Amino acid sequence: MATISPSRRVRRTPFTDGVEAAGVKGYTVYNRMLLPTVFRSVVEDYHHLKRAVQVWDVACERQIEIRGPDAGRLMQMLTPRDLRGMLPGQCYYVPIVDETGGMLNDPVALKLAEDRWWISIADSDLLLWVKGIVYGFRLDVLVDEPDVHPLAVQGPKADQLMARVFGDQVRNLRFFRFGGFDFQGTAMVVARSGYSKQGGFEIYCDGTANGMPLWHALMEAGADLDVHAGCPNLIERVEGGLLSYGNDMTRDNTPHEAGLGRFCSTQTAIGCVGRDALLRVAKEGPLQQIRAIAIAGDVPPCDRAWPLLAGDARVGQVTSAAASPDFDTGVAIGMVRMTHWDAGTVLQVRTPDGMREATVREKFWI
Amino acid sequence: MATISPSRRVRRTPFTDGVEAAGVKGYTVYNRMLLPTVFRSVVEDYHHLKRAVQVWDVACERQIEIRGPDAGRLMQMLTPRDLRGMLPGQCYYVPIVDETGGMLNDPVALKLAEDRWWISIADSDLLLWVKGIVYGFRLDVLVDEPDVHPLAVQGPKADQLMARVFGDQVRNLRFFRFGGFDFQGTAMVVARSGYSKQGGFEIYCDGTANGMPLWHALMEAGADLDVHAGCPNLIERVEGGLLSYGNDMTRDNTPHEAGLGRFCSTQTAIGCVGRDALLRVAKEGPLQQIRAIAIAGDVPPCDRAWPLLAGDARVGQVTSAAASPDFDTGVAIGMVRMTHWDAGTVLQVRTPDGMREATVREKFWI
Repeated sequence: MATISPSRRVRRTPFTDGVEAAGVKGYTVYNRMLLPTVFRSVVEDYHHLKRAVQVWDVACERQIEIRGPDAGRLMQMLTPRDLRGMLPGQCYYVPIVDETGGMLNDPVALKLAEDRWWISIADSDLLLWVKGIVYGFRLDVLVDEPDVHPLAVQGPKADQLMARVFGDQVRNLRFFRFGGFDFQGTAMVVARSGYSKQGGFEIYCDGTANGMPLWHALMEAGADLDVHAGCPNLIERVEGGLLSYGNDMTRDNTPHEAGLGRFCSTQTAIGCVGRDALLRVAKEGPLQQIRAIAIAGDVPPCDRAWPLLAGDARVGQVTSAAASPDFDTGVAIGMVRMTHWDAGTVLQVRTPDGMREATVREKFWI
Repeated sequence: MATISPSRRVRRTPFTDGVEAAGVKGYTVYNRMLLPTVFRSVVEDYHHLKRAVQVWDVACERQIEIRGPDAGRLMQMLTPRDLRGMLPGQCYYVPIVDETGGMLNDPVALKLAEDRWWISIADSDLLLWVKGIVYGFRLDVLVDEPDVHPLAVQGPKADQLMARVFGDQVRNLRFFRFGGFDFQGTAMVVARSGYSKQGGFEIYCDGTANGMPLWHALMEAGADLDVHAGCPNLIERVEGGLLSYGNDMTRDNTPHEAGLGRFCSTQTAIGCVGRDALLRVAKEGPLQQIRAIAIAGDVPPCDRAWPLLAGDARVGQVTSAAASPDFDTGVAIGMVRMTHWDAGTVLQVRTPDGMREATVREKFWI
């Protein structure tokens, strides 16, 4: 594969110096920012993530800050998820859709206060959608991208490492809750969350200047825990069924197709954008849906949608795939039509290296 | 520099097979799509572009199609440029700003008909802003990304090559005009435009399936013209003062700061988003503005803003830079405060490789 060319437009993060020093070998670009994809090798990184602890530069999870009297109203306009019971200190996974129910992003929202929220976004310029809605409805809020940069600490030893840097109180954080924790005199939001199934935290590093000090502090405190620079791992996330916006679902898909129907409370009177369209979908059910797919044989890199075939008929597509060492099979995420989505259905998938047998599974590898 | 990791999220284009076969060595990601940056070397590509003809995969210039009764009204809401005199068949460079006058994109608009437009975008998800405005104002238009993919033909021999594939009529196209031209039975929009100063065209390839046939047709027709796969060339674009959104200006900047004040007709009653803020800017003038900057000595890769200094004071920044073989100097684009923006002002620029002398110029190298 070709190298990635430097430019200011593809933004470095406050942690890029650390990432480079740790010997990053591959990047992708996510929200016009560098996101590491491999350090030692994807397989080595995978095994290490499952047994130790890693520090991930996920600053590309940009924040949209919303503050002002209409902040709560705006947030509920943006997502079909019912936010009425949400308290400050909670994180909610909030699918965001357009007027037709097509997904625009699948971020995590943090309620900082009744009138102040962060939206921690997946890969699309959701800021522009939010600003357009705010302008169109003349809402009384300020919307901006703050100088805040998530750094994830993931793996079975994450609690140990985090306690050394932020104190034992951090162990008491429940899943998808956050609190304020001091780092060298700056209060930072720390949440128990992250894009792996190995457990861990996301530190919302406040201020670019705090980036490398925080990186170094974690690396030094975790030396005996075998801490290493890491990144979201393709194999581990596919095994765990963690969806990737832009890969596994796009604006073409509803949350129901992405298996996120449980986050859509369109039956209640919340009046979000896309409610009418999603009510229709909720009533009829989706015609296709995300499924775990086992692939037999070797798995080439998946850089485009691979057709899923039943005989000559296209009945879906695979959009993320990898070879799993732990489960000794190809693991994949696909979108399958209802005629063929039952567990155990055997299909063919057309990869660039030829056809492979693809079996629809009941669950991901968790 | 690290390699770029494959995923569906970083989209291939209809021409990527041709780009790969031509030996692409570097990519950037632009609108979540692959954009080649170098084939032989940036310097070889540069010399070749100025003497022959190149075919560029610029499919990452995604199109936003707007159609419906409110299309004209929406377009005029989106840009401070006065569109009242624009005719079907014309391309207009249209800065697009938010309510504070901050630039969201600097696309080229194509008026296909009174009720049908394309916006050929720079690197931001402008589609989400447009959809937000449409939703907020309940405008009667459809907004979508069509299956259309720009392929540029640039260089002094572009007319010759294009005439062989599209017929001699294509030579009569005036700058920033477009027409419909047949390619193997499909009518395609062809405009005299492109992101170089060497002249040429942009073909709005209609339909993914037509991508590689079009690529091959151009390569075969131009064999004796020394046609080669190419891409926007960093050196040539900086020499020519072609701005890059995300590099040289961002949402932090007004069009006036970017030197685009002549495209802002805020004095006339066009009622665009951001008009009030831009009226204020037009009255007072910008405090900083884009300038051509000559840099003495060698020029490292510019992957972040480099401070421009007058003594200890920061008076601006350089955001694009390269070493120019033809002009035997470092060429750069910078944003300079009014206190130091006069031609001939000698400043220092802090690059990652150390300080360099930086001289503000009257004009770019054209």
